[in-house]
Amino acid sequence: MAAERITIDLAMSAARIEHDIETLSGPAYTGSDDAIRRYAYIPEYRNTLDYFTRELKAAGFDVSLDPVGNLIARNRPKGEPAFGVGSHCDSNRNGGRYDGTLGVVTALEICRISTELGLNLPLQLISFLEEESSGFGQGVLGSRIMTQQVTDEDLRENFRALDDGRSFWDHATEAGLEPARWRECAEGLDGLVGWIELHIEQGRVLQDERQQVGIVTAIVGITWVDLTFHGRADHAGGTPMGYRADAGLAAAETVVELEKLANAQSIPTVGTAGVGEFQPGLHNVIPGEARLGLDIRSIDESVYRAVVADIVAFTEQAAEARKLTLDVEMQDLTQATGMDEGVVGALEEAAAASGHPFRLMSSGGGHDTQHVAPHVPSAMVFVPCKDGISHSPDELANPADAAAAAEIMLNAIARLTATA
Amino acid sequence: MAAERITIDLAMSAARIEHDIETLSGPAYTGSDDAIRRYAYIPEYRNTLDYFTRELKAAGFDVSLDPVGNLIARNRPKGEPAFGVGSHCDSNRNGGRYDGTLGVVTALEICRISTELGLNLPLQLISFLEEESSGFGQGVLGSRIMTQQVTDEDLRENFRALDDGRSFWDHATEAGLEPARWRECAEGLDGLVGWIELHIEQGRVLQDERQQVGIVTAIVGITWVDLTFHGRADHAGGTPMGYRADAGLAAAETVVELEKLANAQSIPTVGTAGVGEFQPGLHNVIPGEARLGLDIRSIDESVYRAVVADIVAFTEQAAEARKLTLDVEMQDLTQATGMDEGVVGALEEAAAASGHPFRLMSSGGGHDTQHVAPHVPSAMVFVPCKDGISHSPDELANPADAAAAAEIMLNAIARLTATA
Repeated sequence: MAAERITIDLAMSAARIEHDIETLSGPAYTGSDDAIRRYAYIPEYRNTLDYFTRELKAAGFDVSLDPVGNLIARNRPKGEPAFGVGSHCDSNRNGGRYDGTLGVVTALEICRISTELGLNLPLQLISFLEEESSGFGQGVLGSRIMTQQVTDEDLRENFRALDDGRSFWDHATEAGLEPARWRECAEGLDGLVGWIELHIEQGRVLQDERQQVGIVTAIVGITWVDLTFHGRADHAGGTPMGYRADAGLAAAETVVELEKLANAQSIPTVGTAGVGEFQPGLHNVIPGEARLGLDIRSIDESVYRAVVADIVAFTEQAAEARKLTLDVEMQDLTQATGMDEGVVGALEEAAAASGHPFRLMSSGGGHDTQHVAPHVPSAMVFVPCKDGISHSPDELANPADAAAAAEIMLNAIARLTATA
Repeated sequence: MAAERITIDLAMSAARIEHDIETLSGPAYTGSDDAIRRYAYIPEYRNTLDYFTRELKAAGFDVSLDPVGNLIARNRPKGEPAFGVGSHCDSNRNGGRYDGTLGVVTALEICRISTELGLNLPLQLISFLEEESSGFGQGVLGSRIMTQQVTDEDLRENFRALDDGRSFWDHATEAGLEPARWRECAEGLDGLVGWIELHIEQGRVLQDERQQVGIVTAIVGITWVDLTFHGRADHAGGTPMGYRADAGLAAAETVVELEKLANAQSIPTVGTAGVGEFQPGLHNVIPGEARLGLDIRSIDESVYRAVVADIVAFTEQAAEARKLTLDVEMQDLTQATGMDEGVVGALEEAAAASGHPFRLMSSGGGHDTQHVAPHVPSAMVFVPCKDGISHSPDELANPADAAAAAEIMLNAIARLTATA
């Protein structure tokens, strides 16, 4: 295969991507008039899979659903090597047009171009089921099923529809699928020699730095820490400063300390106190209780675990100093996941050759790629979204950025599959 | 008159005070089964005034209601010098047995003893209307009317019942009073040569220091500051620390700073952040808005005004440093009010002679006495309440402390009226 750089008609690709997104924002594809709302297995979700199926068949791909409804399209026979592209096309319940869907649409565009330009790259597109948890309250569910991180009991009993409380199993069966064969979903990764997911950034770094593309080198691990300080709700007037057990003060100190700890790490780390509430919440009553919800993330597991340990130790000291009691609950949301150096390197080289402004970065959010990466050499590509807004009807991204990313991805895949 | 110290039968006085409190906690005297709830002009409030009227008449006092319903009892003809004692007997809507009522009951006990022991001290008892604002949302209303700090328009139109929205004027008229003569309420202070109000502390200083009586040297002034910081509700994962406009952090810094400022004053000052809330209040969303409600109090007006100015300046700098916008609203609740040195001195001397453990202190809450003090030499006496709890059915005070306070007040009044 030629080492020559692939160039595409960026304007045409941008127009097609825009048309796809526009189509999938129409009433047949969303359960809400005011937002994108689609999730397994509502009719609007089925219509979306049908749209991709038609478009991919037109590009010469075989298309099928796996036993739970992950969409898989290939231009090579099953089992032969291929390079994976895709994302998810469900949304949160008050969602925007781009989160997930832009990744599948851009993967579709890559499939189209490969065919149209006669590149005939070995490709497999995946559109994962239920990344957003809108259907069953379970995030990245399609990729978790494909990588066997659920149990039979989960699917039969534990995972229940937010709409009607009936099981995932019942809903999948009713949709014409065969959940009893869910273990065969693992075959969806068979033969994959690599994987790249495009996604909107869901942050404002690319916008603010005027970059068109971000190449993701690692996806963060996330731990949530829930803290409740208990003090005494004494009268603000009758209780001198030295007589107080003020839960709000320990909470405030914790918020300030968390920022310091996050900033002190040499590896990029974020610490956020998103939840903060004093009780009873009256001007003239000292907070008898203060709740905090912390979100701590880093691409290096040892780093965010150290920050978690440090902030919990801080809160324990703060509580003791103020004669408070303290409840601490911790919850790991995702594990930190490094991207594959080979795939990242190919993307970086392709990006540099393309002239499109780009940067390396980490992903601050969780993605299906976190579950693919332990099995397949993986990376992600980000495109900017306006003001970092996502999970909202105000979500906005530029199809021209996705077209530029498609060109970069095509070149990276061409190189990686040529040398594979 | 003899300079000999008056001693009373403390056990008997405590028993009578307890009986009064117990009686006034019965179903005829409260509109709630679970708490004390009485306010102008509900039947339970009227019953309470009737109870005091019967008891005071039995002690040889003339009793009347002023044109809006403040109760006034005297053992001297109107216009002749007398020493004032009393408090209020309304409650907040979910109130306890002691707040206000214990002050009127103890004043009643002083009147009884003066008669029984043949002391014949010149006394006037006042039970002020609507201290707690439960009827019309207007606090210390009786003492404000008596000191002419309302307008005709307020009483006719502006002040409306929380229960039915009808005017104070209508309710007072319906209760058989003559609100059109409200200016004559000023006569309630005529002839008063001094004033002492007993009240539960509503703090835990006396309890924690094992004092039986607190002699109040000053009542605090109070300012409330409402702050709303506006930042950007960006995604916690996608937004590096340096790209944030985190409203919660500026709020947290403000809470921490307020404690430092309050502690730094040489004159006792309290600063409380009782209200604290981050919005939208999700772990993974940086607070786009944070609200704080601050309560700042000191017995010295220049001190609390300086703390208010300092904390507002701090918030403005914190907001600017974090690229936030800030709304600030300030509200003066009461003015700082010094007590009369002569009355305080007489109480202190009487307390020292009595052997009851006591201390001088300031009042962290507002009271009717703040409105009396500019017109009549005034002071207050506090008794402990369990754990500082008030405005709650859990409110608890010890009648023995009130009896000890009654003995001290009697001796102080005897000295002040003998030398007057």
